[in-house]
Amino acid sequence: MTVSLDAAMALAQLLGDEALGLSSPNPPVGAVVVSPGGQYIGTGHTHPAGGPHAEIMALRAAGERARGATLVCTLEPCAHTGRTGPCTAAIIEAGIAEVAYAVTDPNPLAAGGAQVLRDAGITVHAGLQSEDAEAGALRYWLHTQRTGRPFVTWKVAQSLDGQVAAEDGSSQWITSPQARADVHILRRQVDAVIAGAGTLRRDNPRLTARDEDGRDLKRQPLRVIISSAGRIDPAATAFDNAAPTLLAVGPSASHEHIETLRGRGIEVWVSPGSAAQGIDLQALGRELAQRGVLHALLEGGPTTAGSFIAAGLADEARIYLAPKLLLSGMWPALRGYGVNSIEDAIELDIIELERFGPDIRVTAEPRVRGES
Amino acid sequence: MTVSLDAAMALAQLLGDEALGLSSPNPPVGAVVVSPGGQYIGTGHTHPAGGPHAEIMALRAAGERARGATLVCTLEPCAHTGRTGPCTAAIIEAGIAEVAYAVTDPNPLAAGGAQVLRDAGITVHAGLQSEDAEAGALRYWLHTQRTGRPFVTWKVAQSLDGQVAAEDGSSQWITSPQARADVHILRRQVDAVIAGAGTLRRDNPRLTARDEDGRDLKRQPLRVIISSAGRIDPAATAFDNAAPTLLAVGPSASHEHIETLRGRGIEVWVSPGSAAQGIDLQALGRELAQRGVLHALLEGGPTTAGSFIAAGLADEARIYLAPKLLLSGMWPALRGYGVNSIEDAIELDIIELERFGPDIRVTAEPRVRGES
Repeated sequence: MTVSLDAAMALAQLLGDEALGLSSPNPPVGAVVVSPGGQYIGTGHTHPAGGPHAEIMALRAAGERARGATLVCTLEPCAHTGRTGPCTAAIIEAGIAEVAYAVTDPNPLAAGGAQVLRDAGITVHAGLQSEDAEAGALRYWLHTQRTGRPFVTWKVAQSLDGQVAAEDGSSQWITSPQARADVHILRRQVDAVIAGAGTLRRDNPRLTARDEDGRDLKRQPLRVIISSAGRIDPAATAFDNAAPTLLAVGPSASHEHIETLRGRGIEVWVSPGSAAQGIDLQALGRELAQRGVLHALLEGGPTTAGSFIAAGLADEARIYLAPKLLLSGMWPALRGYGVNSIEDAIELDIIELERFGPDIRVTAEPRVRGES
Repeated sequence: MTVSLDAAMALAQLLGDEALGLSSPNPPVGAVVVSPGGQYIGTGHTHPAGGPHAEIMALRAAGERARGATLVCTLEPCAHTGRTGPCTAAIIEAGIAEVAYAVTDPNPLAAGGAQVLRDAGITVHAGLQSEDAEAGALRYWLHTQRTGRPFVTWKVAQSLDGQVAAEDGSSQWITSPQARADVHILRRQVDAVIAGAGTLRRDNPRLTARDEDGRDLKRQPLRVIISSAGRIDPAATAFDNAAPTLLAVGPSASHEHIETLRGRGIEVWVSPGSAAQGIDLQALGRELAQRGVLHALLEGGPTTAGSFIAAGLADEARIYLAPKLLLSGMWPALRGYGVNSIEDAIELDIIELERFGPDIRVTAEPRVRGES
């Protein structure tokens, strides 16, 4: 059996998925080397920052057999020297005859790889399965490149009557183990988890990524705690050593208070703006992107999630609906401003609808204005 | 082509569906006559109360050819004389050789039909496709027979963040035309539509069943308006002449006020109980069943729906979810008491999950305690 370019690209995309959450701030790329006879002779995906890119891993696996072979990868090979040397040089040196890639690198620093390869006499196919690749593992990195802020996924677990907690505030657990396991897969893939100070007070969550047995993983997303006034308990679990944590406070937080928190070992980011304003979420997004966050998981509570959504800073909604009724009406998923009447509703499109054990998972995205 | 008993029963069930909402308080039955050669020679479904039962319609259509033929019907033919004569007598007189039915009549007054037929020398097959038939058109009638109160379907249209209205209270329209058309199909099939006084004040709805062009149908479900104190505007649209309307008030409503309302031509039902109590929803259910209501559609608002659900009197939930976010958190689908912590949640099972245009329709039923 010999493999087609399409089959090789599909494999490269799967490999890219495995780099999700590991490669940040680098793009999660997958790469495959196919011999002139049509056999897989090397595979790879991006390693954590500072480590080899996907192409290098695949070329290493192929070794001498790479000479005259085809390299298939999800992103245009880079032509620049960052923490690692340019991939194009390694590809040329390995004697690769043909390169097929899905997505053209939008980063002006790294772009131009295809031209370098062509100049070296290599046949280049650009744009193979580019739509799939752009919607796949590269989505978050591309979003960050384009907007300067991370892709934000809002996640909420609620009852069928739209409540995230019962009357007494208890919320563990609304959804099933299957749905919660799905959230943990997401936590392993993101670079940051965002929660508000209210959630810390109510639930004192760990906000860590765990393996299937519930043990903390070695690599942890950054925990981002939002509190305009910085009113948090420094002893809250989210400030333990299990993962790095950033406390984002508003411009009104007092200098003295901030210094006290820092004295307790808490890293504090202070929003720009005047004292009358809250946290500038756009500025926070830029800060997170600069810290290498490509994909952030917005876990709430209602006020924090509402402020991101009202600001148009949630790029995807993942809503788990448990077949329960909680009746009180006191604990909505969101509390925010800006939607006065039904005409102002924030419109979404449902991308996916799935059953998760007894629960439902709805994946939705903001509708682009003008579409219907 | 000759038809099997199974195919004939499947057709009888479809015919029964057509009688939904028309036959009440009689069961919506479908019937088919199959010739000895295996051809359909007559079909029928229950006609409005006082009119012929399904079996009679099918026998009339078959005429003389019914002699020696097989009658297939969804419910055991009745052996009693109500507003119409017993079906068993008509079946025997028509010379039917064989009868197959799905569901045994649980009504002691009407039951015993199978034995009468057997005594007349007719071959009887009982229980053919009985599970499907019990879950089908006969479901609501069977429920009323068993419990003495109508089957109640709670319907709600909400945003993905669990809101039934925007901050200013506007709710027209949260869901798409497709979802609203689906609700109108339901309204045509039910015998009553239940709404609270708050909904009347806010939305002044018509609560009528309409055809696809939006015109009121000839046959209308009973509009049931719930108001403990009887504080309603007699000029509200729900009290117009487009459909019959019953106002249900609590025991605390003053006699004088009730008489004033009655003087305005409004039919008032006064709940039993002491003045400190609200409306006895169990008693209201019995009243509705006595009025021939087999299936009631509970349309809200939050307080009315919450009180039915808290009392365990909602037998099905139909939740339409629109891909919108309304943010304010002020307008939950339910407001009720009795679920204090997450352990007390009212557990449902999701029976069906469907897309309706841009929206989602979730059909769920209360989980029977002890099941999981």
